[in-house]
Amino acid sequence: MTENQIYDLLNDHNIKTPKHKSFNIYEEFDVDFFPVALKIESEKVVHKSDFGAVKLNINNLKELNNAKRVIIKNLSTHNISLDEDDKFIVTEMVEGEEFYIGAIEDSIFSKVILFGKGGIYLEIDRDICYIDINSDEKEILSAFNRTKISKLFPQFRGKKYNFLDVINLVKNFQNLLKHNEIISEIDINPLIYREEEGFVAVDARVKFAYNKKREPSNKERVNFFDNRNILIYGVSSNKEKIGFALAKNSLNSKANLYFIGKDKKEILGKKVYQSIDEIKVKIDMVVIALPAHLVVDLIKKLIPKGIKNYIVISAGFKESGNIKDELLLTKLAKEYKLNIIGPNCLGYYNAKIDLNLTFAKSKILKGTNGIISQSGAVLSALIDIATKNNIGFSHIISLGNMCDLGFSHLIKMLNEDDNCETISIYAEGLIDGKEFLEQVRKSRKPIYFFKVGKSEASRRAAFSHTGNLSGSYQMFVNLLKNMGVIIKEDINSLIFSPKYKNLTNVLVVTNAGGPAAILSDFIEETRAKLYELKYEDIEALNRVLPPIWSKNNPVDIIGDAGEERYKKTLEVVEKFEKVDLILIVITPQFMTNPLNIVKLLKNRYKKEIIPILLGGEETKEAKEFLDKEKIFYLETLRGVKDIF
Amino acid sequence: MTENQIYDLLNDHNIKTPKHKSFNIYEEFDVDFFPVALKIESEKVVHKSDFGAVKLNINNLKELNNAKRVIIKNLSTHNISLDEDDKFIVTEMVEGEEFYIGAIEDSIFSKVILFGKGGIYLEIDRDICYIDINSDEKEILSAFNRTKISKLFPQFRGKKYNFLDVINLVKNFQNLLKHNEIISEIDINPLIYREEEGFVAVDARVKFAYNKKREPSNKERVNFFDNRNILIYGVSSNKEKIGFALAKNSLNSKANLYFIGKDKKEILGKKVYQSIDEIKVKIDMVVIALPAHLVVDLIKKLIPKGIKNYIVISAGFKESGNIKDELLLTKLAKEYKLNIIGPNCLGYYNAKIDLNLTFAKSKILKGTNGIISQSGAVLSALIDIATKNNIGFSHIISLGNMCDLGFSHLIKMLNEDDNCETISIYAEGLIDGKEFLEQVRKSRKPIYFFKVGKSEASRRAAFSHTGNLSGSYQMFVNLLKNMGVIIKEDINSLIFSPKYKNLTNVLVVTNAGGPAAILSDFIEETRAKLYELKYEDIEALNRVLPPIWSKNNPVDIIGDAGEERYKKTLEVVEKFEKVDLILIVITPQFMTNPLNIVKLLKNRYKKEIIPILLGGEETKEAKEFLDKEKIFYLETLRGVKDIF
Repeated sequence: MTENQIYDLLNDHNIKTPKHKSFNIYEEFDVDFFPVALKIESEKVVHKSDFGAVKLNINNLKELNNAKRVIIKNLSTHNISLDEDDKFIVTEMVEGEEFYIGAIEDSIFSKVILFGKGGIYLEIDRDICYIDINSDEKEILSAFNRTKISKLFPQFRGKKYNFLDVINLVKNFQNLLKHNEIISEIDINPLIYREEEGFVAVDARVKFAYNKKREPSNKERVNFFDNRNILIYGVSSNKEKIGFALAKNSLNSKANLYFIGKDKKEILGKKVYQSIDEIKVKIDMVVIALPAHLVVDLIKKLIPKGIKNYIVISAGFKESGNIKDELLLTKLAKEYKLNIIGPNCLGYYNAKIDLNLTFAKSKILKGTNGIISQSGAVLSALIDIATKNNIGFSHIISLGNMCDLGFSHLIKMLNEDDNCETISIYAEGLIDGKEFLEQVRKSRKPIYFFKVGKSEASRRAAFSHTGNLSGSYQMFVNLLKNMGVIIKEDINSLIFSPKYKNLTNVLVVTNAGGPAAILSDFIEETRAKLYELKYEDIEALNRVLPPIWSKNNPVDIIGDAGEERYKKTLEVVEKFEKVDLILIVITPQFMTNPLNIVKLLKNRYKKEIIPILLGGEETKEAKEFLDKEKIFYLETLRGVKDIF
Repeated sequence: MTENQIYDLLNDHNIKTPKHKSFNIYEEFDVDFFPVALKIESEKVVHKSDFGAVKLNINNLKELNNAKRVIIKNLSTHNISLDEDDKFIVTEMVEGEEFYIGAIEDSIFSKVILFGKGGIYLEIDRDICYIDINSDEKEILSAFNRTKISKLFPQFRGKKYNFLDVINLVKNFQNLLKHNEIISEIDINPLIYREEEGFVAVDARVKFAYNKKREPSNKERVNFFDNRNILIYGVSSNKEKIGFALAKNSLNSKANLYFIGKDKKEILGKKVYQSIDEIKVKIDMVVIALPAHLVVDLIKKLIPKGIKNYIVISAGFKESGNIKDELLLTKLAKEYKLNIIGPNCLGYYNAKIDLNLTFAKSKILKGTNGIISQSGAVLSALIDIATKNNIGFSHIISLGNMCDLGFSHLIKMLNEDDNCETISIYAEGLIDGKEFLEQVRKSRKPIYFFKVGKSEASRRAAFSHTGNLSGSYQMFVNLLKNMGVIIKEDINSLIFSPKYKNLTNVLVVTNAGGPAAILSDFIEETRAKLYELKYEDIEALNRVLPPIWSKNNPVDIIGDAGEERYKKTLEVVEKFEKVDLILIVITPQFMTNPLNIVKLLKNRYKKEIIPILLGGEETKEAKEFLDKEKIFYLETLRGVKDIF
């Protein structure tokens, strides 16, 4: 595309460009705006700057004619002689703050916009943000506000910078991209910002691709969560088989369970059928734990019976090189509008009807958090930790290889289910990024998100694991942050954070100043904050504490504090209205009896209290007590970062 | 200072400035370098730009005379009329990359240099580094290389950027500061970099202070670590008293211990004296655990006996408002060349002679890491965790209020003691920063450092705790990083990192891909790296693993792996020559028996092995086994960040 064509394209979508005029190579210049730049427009010259075919800061007609002569001469030294197809373009010099906007075609998210600081800082610091082509104003501002250059707005060193200019530019750029799907890459650089005019696109480059129309993936689906007649294929009486675990875990459900298996006629007191033909009820969900090579044929056999929902536990598909059966599953799901979870997954749990169709070893507790995980093993570990800490789930979905159902579908389904209040996601990679973003955008429930793949090494590890693309971590998490998704840095946060989602005003009671200072640093890095003591609060604490207590939150009740002093302190601080969480730090000091202190927590307090027990052997008994009483505690100060 | 005076100051120290010339207000301009800037130099005009008294980009004499007229007119509208004391200064316009260099007088580190990107990015991104006035070239480069602007060096977009220019500039600037101690603040901004000339200081501002000469703190000190005749004041037979804990902990020492106390004539089978006069041996170290108000008088009484070394355990000094006695201790230490540790501290431990003069509740194991801590409570917790994990110390020093001995002295002492191989430091704040930097610079032993005070809240908490300044966290850690100090993000790292200091090539054996990917991300954030499997390695593993294993490190031995497969895998990978640490991830999956797997670790392997046990209840038994066997393990994937 010539400079003129690009300028026209930009102008068509209300993106400003500098004043400019084209001239044939024999034509007299007729220009009344200065200073200007002079460039050649010729198919023979690709790298204009390298060939000396760009002259900047030209102040008058005389200099302009000089510049033309120099360019012609420079080109001739590269054996390029110009003819009547070639043109000179004269462009107004635009000075101001350098920005950059561009778009790429990402393999996961299709068109994604990159916007931020231009100039050298684009390269050395990448001070840019990622914006989806469908982002609304709120997302655009959220993205932009995470760049450093946004700190210039709305005013910096006496100059005004208008956020509306940013929104308009991005919206116009989104329109340009939507109306020109054939563009695969575009770069506007430099993009100059001036107080009076807003953004002016000085230079742009465009790359085209064949137009890959994507098929809409939103096929109609039957309901997945409300099925009651459930058939498990492949139950077993052998306790070391997954088929046994599935049977056992499913037993307490309020759904109607039917077992099909080979080795026994009854398992755990429940009849085992040999074939679906023996079952007279209309089955609406099937769990399959048979060897991989039997799965496709089985589903083909079940489709004519009108069964739409499948949970394929079986491994031995894509993850171990069996692409053929994996693709067949995907094809069947599409053709017959099935819902398939898996293959190669841990299963599915729904608290509403106590339905545990997983082969997880740990008991699963009821709760309000729905979790979607791409790794069954991570899920096993999280369930185990959750149960130990008395935390439950509304739904658990192990996605496995995602031959059909993926993140986007499940976010949608969880949003439609009233039993789910929060959504936690463990993701390695995904395929249909645009649909995923769309569902996250629509979600009315808070989403907690952990994504692997920051490093090349982990992308390799994830690749060998599920065979999905991991994508650029930075782009991924930033697009999600734009929509208010809470990005977590450790997996345990996926179960702890939703539990403490409403708590923000923290009061710390501690028997040592050092740990209190460390804890304050960590709290500062989260969304929570330290409650500021009021005058009356200090007065109230003065009445129960030795005079040298800290007079500050963290409330340092001094190293010789025993359980009595902790008790009196808790009785005072639980009355502080605005406090919603009390952390008690127990450092094993000479006078400290950690066990006696944590025993206080059997009392009922008005506020949520989490003890933090530092040390090893000295706090072991206290930890065992809390384990027994199912009271949640932390073993490190850093642990607070996992709960907020 | 006028522009001319500042330029002279800079030139005196070999810092380049633009060509410039001064003219009386009636004098004809005589300038042959263009383009130039014209500015007024007058005591009447402080904010030149605001008053329209600066004109830039002047291209010839005519424009220069015009500019002069405009400036005179602008000033007259502000009712300023010029006279013969005032001058015009004509300065060559210098264009290039904008940098910044400056120096401040920090309350802890005295003069510190700030250097980095100039222009708006100085303000919105603070892309700068901190450099000590005594830093050598290595430190200067280490600091500079952590800025983003350093990525331009040695070449960027065809332009050359020379690291030597940076070193010369900073060295010249250091000299300028050393020769002009009266400068309290200086700012060179903009500082322009040009390929041909290096750095040119275009504009500078200087602020002066009264010259505060610091007293040199390096008084002569007697040896502290090699004392053998030790007296403890304040032993007690009451098990709830610190005096009892001190007596008990000290008993197994190879030093000669003497007790002074009141309540019994014998404690734990050892004679208790009533007064030092009864002891005929020459005492060389005294531990004091008496009430605060008795401490100063006691030391005054002991000084004439030639006793130089004191460990003041007693609390009740600065930390609780008793400034008077604290200052007296400092004064005595200075006057009589004493070594005083404390007051308000946990005590002192020296592995060489099994000397435990702390009142820590946990047993202390022998090791090679010397730890210095400003918080006794943090130290208690760390000792407890260390002992649980079979980790020891060469020295433990609880600094308490630091009335005398501080970080710098102890870093020096630990460097002189052969039993100490690494140094760990927990710091809240310090006083004599320059001496501290000097000792860190001289240290031949690796230093692991944790500093509180990232956030305002924690600085408040630390303040109420020890009454020391916390200082700017960023400046603090960056000055230390320049010297190769290893900054840790969590306190437990202070005991784990030194233990694993020589391990860098990590191999991961895992029964799940998801956790392996997460772990890879975390390892990537440390100094360790994942060992890359060679062809022969893969061949060797092929012989013992199922065909779908990952063929990659992390070595994913698949979810159904039992102890046998772990065992075979360990037998293969322990032979990989370059691997120095094996992490085994145990996720509680259906076929997994964590206890049986960790039992393998009773075997002797050629490499260090650390198991990582995910989950809660399902891995409890395995953890208990490891606790019993004193085998170190991690409970989270993130934990690897603490060991490297």
